[in-house]
Amino acid sequence: MRATLLYEAGDVRVEDVPDPQIQHPTDAVLRIVRSCICGSDLWPYKSQTYTDTPRHMGHEFLGVIEELGSDVREFTVGDVVVVPFVYSDNTCTYCRDGLQTSCTHGGTWGVNGVDGGQGQYARVPQAQGTMVKLPVDEHSEFLPDLLTLSDVLCTGYHAAHTAGVRKGDTVTVIGDGAVGLSAVLSAKLLGAERIILMGRHRRRTDLGVEFGATDVVAERGEDGVARVRELTGGEGTRTVLECVGLEAALTQSAGVVRDGGTISRVGAPQYPAIPFAFPEFMRNITLTGGVAPARAYIEELMPHILDGTIRPGRVFDRTIALEDVASGYQAMDDRLALKVLIAD
Amino acid sequence: MRATLLYEAGDVRVEDVPDPQIQHPTDAVLRIVRSCICGSDLWPYKSQTYTDTPRHMGHEFLGVIEELGSDVREFTVGDVVVVPFVYSDNTCTYCRDGLQTSCTHGGTWGVNGVDGGQGQYARVPQAQGTMVKLPVDEHSEFLPDLLTLSDVLCTGYHAAHTAGVRKGDTVTVIGDGAVGLSAVLSAKLLGAERIILMGRHRRRTDLGVEFGATDVVAERGEDGVARVRELTGGEGTRTVLECVGLEAALTQSAGVVRDGGTISRVGAPQYPAIPFAFPEFMRNITLTGGVAPARAYIEELMPHILDGTIRPGRVFDRTIALEDVASGYQAMDDRLALKVLIAD
Repeated sequence: MRATLLYEAGDVRVEDVPDPQIQHPTDAVLRIVRSCICGSDLWPYKSQTYTDTPRHMGHEFLGVIEELGSDVREFTVGDVVVVPFVYSDNTCTYCRDGLQTSCTHGGTWGVNGVDGGQGQYARVPQAQGTMVKLPVDEHSEFLPDLLTLSDVLCTGYHAAHTAGVRKGDTVTVIGDGAVGLSAVLSAKLLGAERIILMGRHRRRTDLGVEFGATDVVAERGEDGVARVRELTGGEGTRTVLECVGLEAALTQSAGVVRDGGTISRVGAPQYPAIPFAFPEFMRNITLTGGVAPARAYIEELMPHILDGTIRPGRVFDRTIALEDVASGYQAMDDRLALKVLIAD
Repeated sequence: MRATLLYEAGDVRVEDVPDPQIQHPTDAVLRIVRSCICGSDLWPYKSQTYTDTPRHMGHEFLGVIEELGSDVREFTVGDVVVVPFVYSDNTCTYCRDGLQTSCTHGGTWGVNGVDGGQGQYARVPQAQGTMVKLPVDEHSEFLPDLLTLSDVLCTGYHAAHTAGVRKGDTVTVIGDGAVGLSAVLSAKLLGAERIILMGRHRRRTDLGVEFGATDVVAERGEDGVARVRELTGGEGTRTVLECVGLEAALTQSAGVVRDGGTISRVGAPQYPAIPFAFPEFMRNITLTGGVAPARAYIEELMPHILDGTIRPGRVFDRTIALEDVASGYQAMDDRLALKVLIAD
């Protein structure tokens, strides 16, 4: 089959790799119908040093079941399913707590002999726990929206959920990438009344407004903090959703959060330590969030897509074929595309 | 009157200072009946450089109302009252949220013309919001217990409360100082079933066991983490109460907390940044806590003292007269005393 391999920064290729086979009775094999490129794929795309054992890329995908291991029940060959960006058994104590990212039998796509998601097929480990059946066929117009259940929508939702966003809240969302926009959508879904989106890319923040942002603050750093405080009677907001992953975004979060409030971080950390010491202690700031256990949210969020309440797939502003994946990485890295959908 | 002044590290004196007067209609003047030395008093005691405008020490005290400003209602001269370690109006939006440490009219004892608590008298700003009437006389045997409502018990309780300790929980408490022991007491009060106390001072951890600790781990660092994991089926505990304030205690907290769990920090931070970056993000660790809004908890905790359920005053293992306060600081700094009560 064809799959996406990263050899070094800027060098991503589609090449022939072995077709996946059932290796364990808990496996399934999917024919991938839709996948996409994640903001987090850009970190290795920008930084990886050359390797002759290239990394298999992609961790967001949905597809059709081609083959099922003997232990996988409740699914049929031909089912359309989505998988979250980590696999998990969905039965261990962590999974039962809704923390499938800490599953004792879980793991990551594209490493340790597991396929990546940007390819034609993938073996799904722990398929029974990992796959979620989609009540649509493989030509459904909802596929881009349903694909966001794999990562980006659930990551935004994790931010809003762990921050404790509730009906009537005022929320600040930091970052106008696809995760930030998904966080806006999620905050709205949880009943937030006022959603301040901090971002400076007009085309993105415009979509944020369509998703539910009531205010857009384009300024960054101290100016941005001052503007949010001005909008909130000087106090800042009770919840802040940090969807960037840079230290400057954490500092900005501390600047705009109300005393006693909560910052939820879902941007993959590109910092060595959290710069919250004495002042944030005196202000009783809580820091929560982390990598999203997407699997925990899929059943909860899917109905909102299927009934048309939310259209999270609108974050995809470019569609490419698998063979053109390199151009997709380039477009996202150049910020010419917000998020790239892969569909053949 | 006589009051405690810190000139420089190791040089704490009791000297004559002006008697407090009502300055604002919202003030009261108390005759101090009991006060004490806080672990946090030891930081300046160990580090302050010489000053000829010495710091007025002490922030935990109870006393008898001597005089009331014209705006202070619901109190009478002669009432016995306790005050929390910061004053607050108890009416602003922060106070109404139970965050009196962020009160818009609040402040700290011993600075800006406000008396410290280790003296004969103190002017109480925002007296209406700050003081809480105690239903005892000034000779009550409960005074040491009630004095802990001023800071140490409420600080331990803040850790347990913000961490979300609930009935049946397993909790780790890091630190066997007076705050750590108060956190043990508080976790027990909130229904924790298993309380692992990490501390290496046998006399203190023995009191911790009397307060409700079910396990004591004397090892520190990696050995301590391994021991707690051994005690908890490898997973660690869902909540960790960090009652020290050093970076090593934070690292230890991350080591013993279960994935998806919460660390509440109430030890005043002696570190520049929180060493929680990528691994703690992947484990979905929440960091909460901060300086305790003691005022928010006083009415809730007082009945447990008055009905004899808890005896938090047992953290006081030495009693001195005000004139001997220097010996009290020395004894705490030398770890000869856990916490020193001042009573004349």
